[in-house]
Amino acid sequence: MIHGAMQDWPLLVWKLIDHAAENHGAREVVSLTCEGVVNRSTWASVRARARRVAAALRAMGIQPGDRVGTLAWNTHRHVESWYGISGMGGVAHTINPRLFEDQIVYIANHAEDRVLFLDLTFVNLVEKLAPRMPTIEHYVLLTDRAHMPATSLKLICYEEWIAAAAPDEPWTELPETAPAGLCYTSGTTGNPKGVEYTHRSNVLHAMAACMTDTFGVGACSTVLPIAPMYHANAWSIPYTTAACGAKLVMGGPHFDAPTLQKLIIDEGVDLALAVPTVWLTMLQHLEKNGGGLGRLRATGVGGSAVPQAMIEAFDQLHNVRVMQLWGMTEMSPLGTVGTPTPEVAALPYEQEMVYRVKQGRPIFGVEMCLKDEAGNRLPRDGKTFGRLMVRGPWIVGRYFKGDGGEVLDAEGWFDTGDIATIDELGYMQIVDRSKDVIKSGGEWISSIDLENVAVGCPGVAEAAVIGLPHPKWDERPLLIIVRKEGSNVTEADIRAYLAGKIARWWMPDAIEFVDEIPHTATGKIKKVALREMFRNYRLPAAA
Amino acid sequence: MIHGAMQDWPLLVWKLIDHAAENHGAREVVSLTCEGVVNRSTWASVRARARRVAAALRAMGIQPGDRVGTLAWNTHRHVESWYGISGMGGVAHTINPRLFEDQIVYIANHAEDRVLFLDLTFVNLVEKLAPRMPTIEHYVLLTDRAHMPATSLKLICYEEWIAAAAPDEPWTELPETAPAGLCYTSGTTGNPKGVEYTHRSNVLHAMAACMTDTFGVGACSTVLPIAPMYHANAWSIPYTTAACGAKLVMGGPHFDAPTLQKLIIDEGVDLALAVPTVWLTMLQHLEKNGGGLGRLRATGVGGSAVPQAMIEAFDQLHNVRVMQLWGMTEMSPLGTVGTPTPEVAALPYEQEMVYRVKQGRPIFGVEMCLKDEAGNRLPRDGKTFGRLMVRGPWIVGRYFKGDGGEVLDAEGWFDTGDIATIDELGYMQIVDRSKDVIKSGGEWISSIDLENVAVGCPGVAEAAVIGLPHPKWDERPLLIIVRKEGSNVTEADIRAYLAGKIARWWMPDAIEFVDEIPHTATGKIKKVALREMFRNYRLPAAA
Repeated sequence: MIHGAMQDWPLLVWKLIDHAAENHGAREVVSLTCEGVVNRSTWASVRARARRVAAALRAMGIQPGDRVGTLAWNTHRHVESWYGISGMGGVAHTINPRLFEDQIVYIANHAEDRVLFLDLTFVNLVEKLAPRMPTIEHYVLLTDRAHMPATSLKLICYEEWIAAAAPDEPWTELPETAPAGLCYTSGTTGNPKGVEYTHRSNVLHAMAACMTDTFGVGACSTVLPIAPMYHANAWSIPYTTAACGAKLVMGGPHFDAPTLQKLIIDEGVDLALAVPTVWLTMLQHLEKNGGGLGRLRATGVGGSAVPQAMIEAFDQLHNVRVMQLWGMTEMSPLGTVGTPTPEVAALPYEQEMVYRVKQGRPIFGVEMCLKDEAGNRLPRDGKTFGRLMVRGPWIVGRYFKGDGGEVLDAEGWFDTGDIATIDELGYMQIVDRSKDVIKSGGEWISSIDLENVAVGCPGVAEAAVIGLPHPKWDERPLLIIVRKEGSNVTEADIRAYLAGKIARWWMPDAIEFVDEIPHTATGKIKKVALREMFRNYRLPAAA
Repeated sequence: MIHGAMQDWPLLVWKLIDHAAENHGAREVVSLTCEGVVNRSTWASVRARARRVAAALRAMGIQPGDRVGTLAWNTHRHVESWYGISGMGGVAHTINPRLFEDQIVYIANHAEDRVLFLDLTFVNLVEKLAPRMPTIEHYVLLTDRAHMPATSLKLICYEEWIAAAAPDEPWTELPETAPAGLCYTSGTTGNPKGVEYTHRSNVLHAMAACMTDTFGVGACSTVLPIAPMYHANAWSIPYTTAACGAKLVMGGPHFDAPTLQKLIIDEGVDLALAVPTVWLTMLQHLEKNGGGLGRLRATGVGGSAVPQAMIEAFDQLHNVRVMQLWGMTEMSPLGTVGTPTPEVAALPYEQEMVYRVKQGRPIFGVEMCLKDEAGNRLPRDGKTFGRLMVRGPWIVGRYFKGDGGEVLDAEGWFDTGDIATIDELGYMQIVDRSKDVIKSGGEWISSIDLENVAVGCPGVAEAAVIGLPHPKWDERPLLIIVRKEGSNVTEADIRAYLAGKIARWWMPDAIEFVDEIPHTATGKIKKVALREMFRNYRLPAAA
């Protein structure tokens, strides 16, 4: 095969920050910091300081391919460190500080991090964990001399460290498939697994994120990623805003509604991105206190399904468009975006909503299909449940160090672990996690759909559904209910409520009442714990 | 170097059409055809038919890497052929039918085209040229049986040919650096040189073109590329619209204002792209006949500088935004786009115009700098003239078959052959072609700027400036004037008009009057011919 004659120009992450600094150098990068102030920086300054980070890491003996961890909030210093680490060939390993201590230790050791950048918030935590993280040779505290704390840790002061570094060393030339970042999944079962992003995957993802139907951002945009950098690169916003020269606004350690509202208004944010719980809190705050959301035109909402009521509240009370996003750490993270097609945009509001509650359409670069248990392709009819499979240049090919073995099927598809439908217009909707869906007589019952209906029954505070073994149907649903305070809703009440609202064969075989349903740190129902709780439970034989 | 663990997903052109067919299958592709009808197709149909083209070419014995020529207008059949050719590994070689016959023959032979797809328009031309193009084994006429003409050529009927082809053969798997397309520059000196696009360069360019600040197109857009596919891939619109699922509208052989106006209105076009002369004609037509431009929100204008009066007319009379574009065949073609930065958007109209008449800002993926004759970097101050140098993944690394030898400098920059300025906000402005700029005493005089001022002098119909050798200053300007009919404007009148409007040292050393100035096929002044005409001319010694 003869190769074409275009220039060899590898897709490297530092080309994003170079583009921003050279063409949008004066555009602002604004952060609320851990020291409690607003820091006003620019893309030119972020690049200049990131180059010093790269030089300082080289001077420490860090080599291309080495992992450098961060335990930090969204600030300019975290962005500088990030570009600096991957700009010298290092792998920027963002650690989620909300994990259990044992998990943080496991992850830092598994990654063999040689340096750890940390925010003031985490000094006590790291003081405690340091003896258990032997690969870490240096701790860099993301602050200035005035804020250096008294601690037993041997801390490097970030501002002094970069001030002393060489200012003008060029970035490291690398093949575009070199690793640039590392992020561990917060696996609910087993140890977290690492997803290693490459320069190529991050740059392609940033370009796709800048597309009009994805985030629709450009040089006139002001973007606030509330999603933290340790959640799949803050959904790529620090890359995306550099690629298009947008103004970047970051909240540091602050996630409370009043602070975020003030930041959105003061900085003229027009797009802000966060998980639904952040927006739920914001809506409640706005309802109580008013004040609006300034120039905000859209919220990017991902991480879990967006309730219809939230979409309606933003539309009707705040003239803000909810842009539903779906992705995962393994996907860098973007897979689908809920921007409308012309067919959907032309629908009356109620019918448009049918599509808006779905997770959206795949962006270019993400291939998507549904497969059954045997690996056969399923139709895109909006009804058929199937395993959601994805392929693309920013989707994981194998986990870091090969953990979990082969993760692609024979055709190269990655199994998302989700059960979904895809409709004729290309909108995907998550139905359930594949480990939670109930396989009943060759058909699938969505535990999430059942829960959503059941929770509407008067007197029900919370509902969870798990599948239990059944001699005839393989699995059948058990519905677990937490009653509202003071309610004495009965099994018969709930059955009467469900009848007609669900397919008859979806009717749970049993309903149990409990005082509490266990949750994960991010508020999701802990199905694993529920299954353990009901391990010896026997469904009535009649069904 | 350890490589990261993202999926291996080569950037191949057929993934663009797969994305469109799978996620936007029902979106329309509308063409005016050579047979004089409106053809309504869809992305799903274009993909299905393109796969048949691929199968039919394979059945003919065409191999990956072979060149397949097209002499065709913008229609669905041309787009199908294009995706079909590169989808089986062939190189889609779009030939400009407006070239001189000898150039067409030279190009077809140089490319060693094995097949030629042609439109009805070109049957007579090809009949005449076929004996001189011995590498072409098959001629495919892009029409149906009913429209097959009587001709001595052995023509394959496109519709019958693809109807008989295998429908379901998969696309050819290729490395992303494999060639996908070939386009010759219409070199004003010497033979045309081929620019060979790769799958990678075309896909990256399409992604960049979909960015909000580039074309700003998405699934709700309707785009009309008036720029032909043989002009640098119709500025990538058939790739770009597939990548984002936009509706694609094409005018076939029609370039007249009434037909284009009707098409824009009837199909709801919101972005249309063409060279300035097309828009000039359209503005004149609208002024006379009214009728407006329907939903059109923007015109992409490139190929030569856009006059300020055109920007103002579109703004003020039609509420249509002129989006100035700059690029070249060697750049796939996009380099800069004139979308505003927030600083520019905030300016009063007159001051904003200072930036809007410039050629725009580089998009991500295009690096740009100015160098002097010695190769030193020049400042971005909006004033300093320099050679405009570019780097990026969709910019030529060498010409096809190595013609012209090494074309990159030691740092990998490609010399665009333009002299330009870049200002502090990143806006680039073309000052002149480097071969036309007048090098006077170490300083540069823009022949274009001088011409633009001179043409404003009452009685002047057209003005051209060339540099002539000068014993003291190396070169000095000669101004060549065509008088308006009935005018008897004199040299003294013109000198009086220029005085105060140009730097004193820019004043031409001599002014000559001619009846006619020679032009290229695309309407540009033929400076080469002028220099030949004035080869023995002696400037007065006094200056």
